[in-house]
Amino acid sequence: GRISPQKKKSDVRIKSVLSKMFNSMAKVNYDIDKKDGNVIVNVGYVGKEYYDDVLDILKEAYKKGLGISNRFGIKEEDGLIKISTICASTLDGIFSSYGVPIIPCYGGILEVEEDNERFIDIISYEGSSLDPHEVFFNKVDCETSILAGFREIPMCAREDLIDLVKALGWNGIKEIGRPNNEVYGVSVEKNMCGVVTIGGMNPLTMIKEHEIPIKINALHEIVKFSELVEYDKI
Amino acid sequence: GRISPQKKKSDVRIKSVLSKMFNSMAKVNYDIDKKDGNVIVNVGYVGKEYYDDVLDILKEAYKKGLGISNRFGIKEEDGLIKISTICASTLDGIFSSYGVPIIPCYGGILEVEEDNERFIDIISYEGSSLDPHEVFFNKVDCETSILAGFREIPMCAREDLIDLVKALGWNGIKEIGRPNNEVYGVSVEKNMCGVVTIGGMNPLTMIKEHEIPIKINALHEIVKFSELVEYDKI
Repeated sequence: GRISPQKKKSDVRIKSVLSKMFNSMAKVNYDIDKKDGNVIVNVGYVGKEYYDDVLDILKEAYKKGLGISNRFGIKEEDGLIKISTICASTLDGIFSSYGVPIIPCYGGILEVEEDNERFIDIISYEGSSLDPHEVFFNKVDCETSILAGFREIPMCAREDLIDLVKALGWNGIKEIGRPNNEVYGVSVEKNMCGVVTIGGMNPLTMIKEHEIPIKINALHEIVKFSELVEYDKI
Repeated sequence: GRISPQKKKSDVRIKSVLSKMFNSMAKVNYDIDKKDGNVIVNVGYVGKEYYDDVLDILKEAYKKGLGISNRFGIKEEDGLIKISTICASTLDGIFSSYGVPIIPCYGGILEVEEDNERFIDIISYEGSSLDPHEVFFNKVDCETSILAGFREIPMCAREDLIDLVKALGWNGIKEIGRPNNEVYGVSVEKNMCGVVTIGGMNPLTMIKEHEIPIKINALHEIVKFSELVEYDKI
């Protein structure tokens, strides 16, 4: 069986989440030098009464290294609080636009306790019609386990990626593996390196973990990075 | 990224559910002529007070064509009622042992209403460490949607499979597609045919739909087909 990424007239053809991710990646035009441009965000909604609690939790998430970049979105919309966190697809989009071919492979649960970090469950993007992190959202606690993603890059691009990550200056890349080496229990194709990313939804997961009812949007949104606010300024 | 099926000393290496399915398939030795042998079952537990309700629901499931084969298991164990339904991996095991190479591709949700049957969500077995039907168990209602599986066979084996399905005489195969044709919205590799199976857990899902608390075992079990009871004899 194959989930075909080509567009077809028929509405019946099922689409892989990978094809949606490639579409999102193409919309990213964040400029590393100008520190601005379009980025992709995950969106969640909570009741207005939770505004202060949510800010505290988001600040905590950032301190724990669970936010991608140093910015997030928060604003009132239709009587609710709309929270936006940067999605890992933004990293894919940035690195791709700067010449590093980065291939999203899996979304999963990364166990992070006791110096024994390993993926305990993963679902491939190519082989799934739904976002793996949608599946795993309720199964991580952001203490012993977090949402994380697994990507591959060709080994020849490893140094370029390291330079780009440094130039970008964002939190979000947890590990860049050595060529042909498995990372946290997941192996790579020949002559590739594994790259593990923090899941963009982790701050929203922490809100859920604090028993605040949060509704996650199915679709991501594109926003200008400069319209987001800094975690440090909370 | 690749989920490697080889056994490694390291306990860290994550295993795909496909490798577990191949292991299960190898344990099936059901003989079509003798109508007996080892089969694989899904197992669920409910409280003793639900015994009569559960029998009614299982009978209803069978009438709706949602049970694989014409048998299931029910017995008391440790103060609970243990229910066993035949898993679709049994079909894989039987067809493989009779010479049809059948490759499990996806587990998913099949929308079955209004003559417009199509998969609305799928997760690949190879690319996932967890059973897709475990993910989808709470998302189907067995009225408008059911758990279903997608497999592939080489087109040269299509007639053999049709003969085997007839000889086997079991409910469980929903559709055998034509070579290179998509089935219910999922496309196939070149020169393959799609084969759609009923999910073995659907009767357990119906129990859940009737608001009876049911605990599904993570692991499948191997039982002798003759030790199971006939749905018709309820």
